[in-house]
Amino acid sequence: MLLKTLREEVREANLELVRRGLVLYTFGNASGIDRAQALVAIKPSGVPYEELTPEQIVISDLAGKIVDGTLRPSSDLATHLELYKHFSSIGGVAHTHSEFGTSWAQAETPIPCFGTTHADSFHGPIPVTERLTPSQIAGDYELETGLAIVRTFSKIDPASVPAVLVAGHAPFCWGKDAAEAAHHAVILEYVARMASHTLSIHAESRPLGSELHDKHFLRKHGRNAYYGQVKT
Amino acid sequence: MLLKTLREEVREANLELVRRGLVLYTFGNASGIDRAQALVAIKPSGVPYEELTPEQIVISDLAGKIVDGTLRPSSDLATHLELYKHFSSIGGVAHTHSEFGTSWAQAETPIPCFGTTHADSFHGPIPVTERLTPSQIAGDYELETGLAIVRTFSKIDPASVPAVLVAGHAPFCWGKDAAEAAHHAVILEYVARMASHTLSIHAESRPLGSELHDKHFLRKHGRNAYYGQVKT
Amino acid sequence: MLLKTLREEVREANLELVRRGLVLYTFGNASGIDRAQALVAIKPSGVPYEELTPEQIVISDLAGKIVDGTLRPSSDLATHLELYKHFSSIGGVAHTHSEFGTSWAQAETPIPCFGTTHADSFHGPIPVTERLTPSQIAGDYELETGLAIVRTFSKIDPASVPAVLVAGHAPFCWGKDAAEAAHHAVILEYVARMASHTLSIHAESRPLGSELHDKHFLRKHGRNAYYGQVKT
Amino acid sequence: MLLKTLREEVREANLELVRRGLVLYTFGNASGIDRAQALVAIKPSGVPYEELTPEQIVISDLAGKIVDGTLRPSSDLATHLELYKHFSSIGGVAHTHSEFGTSWAQAETPIPCFGTTHADSFHGPIPVTERLTPSQIAGDYELETGLAIVRTFSKIDPASVPAVLVAGHAPFCWGKDAAEAAHHAVILEYVARMASHTLSIHAESRPLGSELHDKHFLRKHGRNAYYGQVKT
Repeated sequence: MLLKTLREEVREANLELVRRGLVLYTFGNASGIDRAQALVAIKPSGVPYEELTPEQIVISDLAGKIVDGTLRPSSDLATHLELYKHFSSIGGVAHTHSEFGTSWAQAETPIPCFGTTHADSFHGPIPVTERLTPSQIAGDYELETGLAIVRTFSKIDPASVPAVLVAGHAPFCWGKDAAEAAHHAVILEYVARMASHTLSIHAESRPLGSELHDKHFLRKHGRNAYYGQVKT
Repeated sequence: MLLKTLREEVREANLELVRRGLVLYTFGNASGIDRAQALVAIKPSGVPYEELTPEQIVISDLAGKIVDGTLRPSSDLATHLELYKHFSSIGGVAHTHSEFGTSWAQAETPIPCFGTTHADSFHGPIPVTERLTPSQIAGDYELETGLAIVRTFSKIDPASVPAVLVAGHAPFCWGKDAAEAAHHAVILEYVARMASHTLSIHAESRPLGSELHDKHFLRKHGRNAYYGQVKT
Repeated sequence: MLLKTLREEVREANLELVRRGLVLYTFGNASGIDRAQALVAIKPSGVPYEELTPEQIVISDLAGKIVDGTLRPSSDLATHLELYKHFSSIGGVAHTHSEFGTSWAQAETPIPCFGTTHADSFHGPIPVTERLTPSQIAGDYELETGLAIVRTFSKIDPASVPAVLVAGHAPFCWGKDAAEAAHHAVILEYVARMASHTLSIHAESRPLGSELHDKHFLRKHGRNAYYGQVKT
Repeated sequence: MLLKTLREEVREANLELVRRGLVLYTFGNASGIDRAQALVAIKPSGVPYEELTPEQIVISDLAGKIVDGTLRPSSDLATHLELYKHFSSIGGVAHTHSEFGTSWAQAETPIPCFGTTHADSFHGPIPVTERLTPSQIAGDYELETGLAIVRTFSKIDPASVPAVLVAGHAPFCWGKDAAEAAHHAVILEYVARMASHTLSIHAESRPLGSELHDKHFLRKHGRNAYYGQVKT
């Protein structure tokens, strides 16, 4: 892929987060990777979205060395890089402080799968990381955040549950590219919002049974999917 | 009715769901039926609303055979068809994952009639279906969803309570045509939202007495209605 | 006052309710009175706001006889008339099914004065009517609603607390004219919304002390008011 | 600084509060100070924001004497002046009745630091003032409000926690200038909203540990900050 194309895709994913109301000021960032070149494109730090040009998107290698661009990358770059290094199936990452996703992360409570809207995109509850230890916080904080996410997925397939809540922080989502990562961030926020209402209406609400959860996830994903139009 | 007219009505009802904020991405669908021809018009699966043309609306017979249109119908078609087959008074169906309606469905709690806004459109609480059994889910899932709705109305007149919450899924609404089905979907969401707040303000809130519930429903419906302008 | 002017004021107040997001479809109505002529101008029943012209505003006398206009008046006319007959200080009435005001009415819970936003406009909690009896509902229902409001204010000055919650129904607000009635409807909704959050944050929240409640109400109202610019 | 510039900055900060949805009608005001001249520019009382011109911004000295402008200043001027007199590091003040900030003030509950969104801007919980006594309310009320805020910060650095909740009233925020005060008002509202949801999801939610709280605040503030672009 041309870096120009990757930059445009990453800019577009960042703007999608804004259009969907997931971002206050500059609290969020999306990135994408070109696996062939092992290069990551990410939003620059603290630049207002309305002024963001494709050229301002920063290009980094997987070690965090900036190989193209004149601005500082998002301060969360090291977290994105750990996800790309450990989750080989993903091509994009989106991080927001969206209202309800962040509230669940602050409550340090996994989001149960209460319904088919959740099951359509996430094949299981949205997990929460452990809190970082003082020495992890004092060390390479953003990298440690990435490692905490990776540990959370030691027994979960990140391709089936493309989102996590970082304890006391906010969600990170991913997908096959930056656009799908942003798409998952939008759905996560909607699912988080409804899960909160569900508990408010009935504190003992039960998660979906596994059969229905599987049914809906597999209606949209994998070999036997039958939602949407046939891709030709 | 001309199929062209039915298609335009169905497209318009789908767009109304979007304009009223009931739909995220493509999570929703509205349909209408021409009873004389026994043909149903429904949104195609996974097509973005902003691009939806009348020609893309799919025409199916009541057995689910596509008789006109080149796209796949909504994956929920079989649910709509069961409703048309069993509820002879209805001419349109609308299904959304609207925020509060879906939350009540996820909480598997019927929406009590707490006020006249509810009573003006629904002559009773909004019921919730039973959960489907594993074998129903493994079988013809969307058809079984329709049958679960039909069983829920074994002692309720669907013309008086034109909405249901499918357990762990979301609302289905209906009406004399696609436009009225969409209208009921909008009111259901508003009623669901206020019922949630009502419980939050006072957990022991009481439903309306039956006299006031009847009064408001009959002020707008049936022989002695006196709301609105005289239709001439 | 010319009827033309009154009609325009009443139309404008109705549109203000819509602009402020207090009205779904046609669920609301505002009216104004010309005390000299003892004539009331009110929204017609069930007419979409976007099409409402001043000429469509219906003119009624205090007995409910239509003296000008070709459309049916709002079905709540008799409630408005009772308020004008018993509350001699008021010149306008606004009725909505606004989201949080209606939720408090459904919870049959008076809105406590939790803060200065409330105290600036309402000199006391927002009271709730008694439920109507079956015979009142079966009788002249809308007139009985007005009388229930009037009874609720037997020991409250309607000029100091220009709003009420009708049990199981929704708010009615009033003011010196239709514009002020609509203004109070907007503030009531905001106050209702915040009171709900206040209880959610801390269930034992205490109302304002009477000194601060008085201070804020009297900062804006009456002889010693000092908020805003001097009217010259 | 020219008074013209200060007036424009203060007008702009007031309009920012409106654009961000923090203000209903005229419930809010922002001010800025020119420390060299010891002059404060503040919004006039009760003037609609959409009509606000720079020339209407009122100029007061620190004793509350109007030295330029023809309109009455905001009735909260005396509160702003106490903040400028006691908090020497600040250059702007913003006061709103924003929905969730006000609800926490009404609940008289400090906003705990539940997450990094809060920690990025506020180095500690958002404190609540004591209630004013009847004699303080009967006396110079707005000045006493300022003094109550100052007492609340006897052991807190106002530069590290640039916001307070006035009990039963609403938030006051500040910053190095009027723009930053408005910025803090926006973030406070967002943090207040999410803290409310956090408690609703899990009533026993724990605040951030001090290490992570420090980390995030210091990532954006002070000598070792590394968020955003290098200011040159």
